[in-house]
This record gives sequence, structure tokens and C-alpha cells, in this order.
Amino acid sequence: MAKDNKIYFTPGPSELYPTVATYMAEALDRKILTISHRSKAFQEIYAHATQGLKQLLNLPDNYQILFLSSATETWERILQNCVTSTSFHAVNGSFSKRFYEFSGELGLTGIKAEVPFGESFTANSLTIPAEVEAICLTHNETSSGASMPVSEINKVRAKHKDALIFVDAVSSLPFPEFDYSKIDSVFFSVQKCFGLPAGLGVWILNERCIEKAKAKAAKHSTGTYHTVDSMLSKAIVNQTPETPNVLNIFLLSKVVEDMNKIGAKVLRESTERKAKLIYDYLETSSNFEIFVQDETQRSKTTIVANTKLSPSEVNKTLAPFDMAVGSGYGNYKEKQIRIANFPAHSEVHVEKLVSTLKTQIG
Amino acid sequence: MAKDNKIYFTPGPSELYPTVATYMAEALDRKILTISHRSKAFQEIYAHATQGLKQLLNLPDNYQILFLSSATETWERILQNCVTSTSFHAVNGSFSKRFYEFSGELGLTGIKAEVPFGESFTANSLTIPAEVEAICLTHNETSSGASMPVSEINKVRAKHKDALIFVDAVSSLPFPEFDYSKIDSVFFSVQKCFGLPAGLGVWILNERCIEKAKAKAAKHSTGTYHTVDSMLSKAIVNQTPETPNVLNIFLLSKVVEDMNKIGAKVLRESTERKAKLIYDYLETSSNFEIFVQDETQRSKTTIVANTKLSPSEVNKTLAPFDMAVGSGYGNYKEKQIRIANFPAHSEVHVEKLVSTLKTQIG
Repeated sequence: MAKDNKIYFTPGPSELYPTVATYMAEALDRKILTISHRSKAFQEIYAHATQGLKQLLNLPDNYQILFLSSATETWERILQNCVTSTSFHAVNGSFSKRFYEFSGELGLTGIKAEVPFGESFTANSLTIPAEVEAICLTHNETSSGASMPVSEINKVRAKHKDALIFVDAVSSLPFPEFDYSKIDSVFFSVQKCFGLPAGLGVWILNERCIEKAKAKAAKHSTGTYHTVDSMLSKAIVNQTPETPNVLNIFLLSKVVEDMNKIGAKVLRESTERKAKLIYDYLETSSNFEIFVQDETQRSKTTIVANTKLSPSEVNKTLAPFDMAVGSGYGNYKEKQIRIANFPAHSEVHVEKLVSTLKTQIG
Repeated sequence: MAKDNKIYFTPGPSELYPTVATYMAEALDRKILTISHRSKAFQEIYAHATQGLKQLLNLPDNYQILFLSSATETWERILQNCVTSTSFHAVNGSFSKRFYEFSGELGLTGIKAEVPFGESFTANSLTIPAEVEAICLTHNETSSGASMPVSEINKVRAKHKDALIFVDAVSSLPFPEFDYSKIDSVFFSVQKCFGLPAGLGVWILNERCIEKAKAKAAKHSTGTYHTVDSMLSKAIVNQTPETPNVLNIFLLSKVVEDMNKIGAKVLRESTERKAKLIYDYLETSSNFEIFVQDETQRSKTTIVANTKLSPSEVNKTLAPFDMAVGSGYGNYKEKQIRIANFPAHSEVHVEKLVSTLKTQIG
């Protein structure tokens, strides 16, 4: 068994938040993985997780938090529960495209607007048919590193008052400061910015989504244990319909507690500073080139660059320094690197990465 | 943070398999929770888990193994993928009933045979309409402790050659020695007999299920990322469609390796011996009474007894000895106890439980 001392700047699963190992030991000591998911002890863990998230994300009272098994499942449950006929998807990469495809696979009509890989959207650039019930936006496309600015997301509502607005923030929350009065739902995976093991998706939704789900369920099958109604009926008593990933809910409750001690504002400022370090370096590099052209659309959390050296050559160079970056996604696997800039990546880590790349690759 | 030294005989989540803590530390050391779920390292872990399971369960080559997030999800995916119109359910407790209800919730026709809580079925006692596409049996009803003997499950096929036979073995595998030529699918949760943290369901299915899923998918929507086809297309390269619960797949691979070293036969014999110790005690107890009347239907893995003392009184008595049992399920919460007899519960643990109950409660 070889101990791995590398710091992984991969875009998820990624580096664990530094306190996770301690909390895993605590979970074992307190036998949290053995207790019943119907026990008071579990309910307290669940409540601690959701209350902590409400504080960290500054969620208004009309929002509820549901635990699913992945963001991929959340795509399915959103469409299955909250769309009867037509969903609209702003597609700019592999993940937003997959969400769009789910609509058709569920027998719904998915309508898409598409821009080239590496670009994102402004509110004005989106032509959204009036009849769509759901507008699905991706805040941060993990595959390309293109981000739709929150200021642009906030403008969509003005022209589309009836449609529900769902925002995929899988690889960016808790960084973006959403205006929750301008959207209806956000969701994320814990293995990105929260620095946890994979296996938990978090779906946050307001009363408009819940009403829509009720209306659909009155006329159509919307699933079984993970209908919005089934999940809410358990969420209200701090439980889930099924036996959930108890470990991850516990770890989330603890890491969010840590993040709240630091504060969302400080976390955001640190993310901005680290992103600037990385982009400033990439701009002057002779090997790398920032992929996203529009500066306002450059992701702060998953940074993508074209590379002359192959990603495996880059990682071979970084290996003696105990660091690794992610390769490009899909067709870009050999042509791009992706650098995750999550709260688990400290400023010291990022400084070391940038200085090593600078001296070793240029 | 209070360290909990109790041994939990609760029916799941339950006691962790004794090596789990070591493997969790190994996962952290090797950074298994950080590596990509598309990496070779992950594929090797996945392959080790499925190969180990094939050996432990003695699975024929025509069976495939799929990883889902829970057994509850597996109920949904079975019906969604493999049933077009009608499913049959042998209902004898809360979990088999919930599986039956899922059929209607998905817009299918669920037909049930029902016996009182605490009883199970023989093949002859089941009147199954000829038109059903799926026969859903529960090997071990976790809520009541009633078990359908494998010899009876094996007789169902003779009269129903076309229907697919699904066996819920959530809280019994790897104990039952199934004849895989007489059934088409089994499934389980890892937080029961495998002694792992909750958050992973394992669905094992043969080529007949896969053909049926293909036929249904050609005409109907059968979901998105967790259609049989989508899961198989990734399983073939030792991956999952979504980012999975990597920790649990790793822990499963290691615990199954441990179990294979002991051997399924030895594990079964130990389970039988421990069950006999518990039932022999319950039979002579002045406080407890074995709930399942038919001796052939008594579960070997989740043992249920009526109790004069409330379960909380029983646990108050056991607490100074660092042990706890489960309370009854649902309406039986205050009237019954449930004792899990899983591989994580050693013979020494069970002897201590029985002798403590004997001297302290009688």
C-alpha cells in the first residue's frame, strides 16, 4: 500500500477538505455509521447539515434542501418532478448537454441553445421560447471552465416570470453569491468545492418548484421514493426516504460548520485571489493558454487551459513536487489541462503549483 | 465527542465489519477518495469488487453486477427497466409492501399476495397470475424476521417460466445459497450483512433481465443515467455513469476479499451457529418470545422476538455491557426487538449478548 502525498488539483473528485480525515475518525469513534437513519442522533446530524448550508449559502426561508445520491440523479429528478412537457437548456459543454439529453430520454421535449465549447451565455444571448416550464442554466461548466456570470443569471427572470429557473452549480457552490429571488433552484455535488468523498448530491429548491411538482404528481407518475413529495415528507423530520449516505451527510455538516467559521465572504475572496494567481500565470506561460476567451466568463473554480505539452507530461513534471492537475475533458483530454481551485486548495498550495509550473515548464 | 464502545445488533445500518476502519484509513492514505472515477486506479477497484462478489456469491457468468445508491433505488430501477405492465409481489412486511407500492407509483399494475406480518411464503401458497412479467420475492423481510426458504424460491420457476424472478436479499446476502438458474436477479444493501457504511445498493441480474430492459427501452422511456443499458455500458469498462460512492465500492472490494479468505461456507456455518444460540435462548426466555412461528421461515440474519419489557428497557439493561439491539419495526416498535446476526457480529459477541440477556433479563 503506497501512501500518496500528492495534492490533486483535479476538478472532482478532488482534494479532500483538510479536516475530512479527522471527521471520518470521529464518525467511527461515535459509531455514526452504525446508528439508525431513523434515530434522533441521525436527525440531529441532518439538521446540523441543512442549517449550516442555509447559513453558508444565505438561503431564504422559502428554500428547502434535499439530499440525493449525485448531481446526475438531481438532473433526472428535476425533470421528472418539475417538468410536464418542455424544458430549456443552455448548453455549452458535456455536462449541460447531458442534462439536456435527459429531457428527451424522459419523454419530454428538451429545447437547447448552444454555444461553442469554452463559451457561456449572457441573458440577452438566450432566446427562450415562452412555453418552456423550466430554464436550465449551468453556472460553471466543469468540462470547459466557462461560467455564466451570476449577474447574467439574475437577468433571465425578468423576461420569463413563469418558468422555473434551475441552476447547476455542481462545481462552483459555495463560491457564487446567487440572488435566490431571481432563481428557483440550485444544486451541487459534494466532491467538488465541498471537498468530500463522492456519493451525495444536494438539491435546493423553492416553493414554486414544490408547487409544480405537486401539480405534476397529481396527474402523472413522477417516480417513487425520490418524488419531491416523498423527499419533503421525510426532510421535514430531518430524514430521507431511503437509508442515505450517512457518512457524507455527517461530513458535510462538519465541513460546512468549518466553512461557516471562516465565513462565505472570506472563502470567496480567497477563491478570487487564488484564481487570479493561476490566470495571471497562464497568461504569461509559453506552454499554456487560457481557454475561455471572454474574461467575464472565466470560471473561478475550474480553470481550463490549452497546453502544448500533453497533460500526462505536465503531471510527470509535477509528480516530483507531489502535485497533479486534471486533464482536459472528452475530446480535449490530450489538449487541455483543468485546474481545480476549491476551498480545499489552500493559497499556499496554489502558490506552490504556480511557481513550480513557472520554473519547470515556463 | 463521546466515544461509543457499544456493539450494535441493530438490523442495519449495523455494526461495521471489523476491518472497515483500517480500510477507511487506507483509502485516505492512498487518496482513493480524490482520484477520478474515470481513472485506471478506480477501474481496478471496481473490478476487484465485482470479481470478489462473483466468487463469494458463486455467480454464474450470465450474471452482471451493477452499483446503485440503495436497495430502495434498485426497487425503482427494476420496475422502471424490466416491467412494462404487471409485476407480482409476495408481501409480508413493510419492505416487500413498499416494493409492491412502487409498481403503482410508476404507473404499472402491481399484484400482491399477502400473508400476515411474521409469516412468509411457500411456492405452493403463491397464486401468481400467468400474465405477470416479474415475480418479486423477498428472501428476508427485515421488518418481521420472516424468511422465504431458498428451497421454496427454487420451486417458483417451474410454474412460471417466462416471468423474471427478482429476489430481495437486502438483509441476508451473502448468507443464502441461491440457485441462480432458478431466479433472474438478486439485490442487496451494503449496510446489512456486508458491514459497510450505508449508501450503496448492489443489483445482480442475468441476461434475461437485460433483454427485457432492452425490449422495454425500445418502446418506452426507462429513465436516464440508470437505465440498464446506461449502467451496463459503463460496467463493461468497470465504471458507473455518474460519479459513484467510490469509498463504498472500495470498502466493498476489501471486505469481500476478507470474506473470500474465510469462505462463504464457513461464513454460512458461523451464521447458523450464532442464529441457533439466539433462538435457543429466546425459546427459553421468560421475557422474549420468538415472533416467527414457522420454524422453516425464521430468518438467520434478522431475528425478531416479542418482548414484555419495552425495547428501550432492554437496551437500558444492555447499555452497561456495551451492547444494543434493534427495536421492532413500525407498529411493532415498542413490542418487539430485532437482533441482527451479520458477519460483523462475531460468535463471541453473540455469546456475550445471549449470556447477558439470560442473566439480566431472563
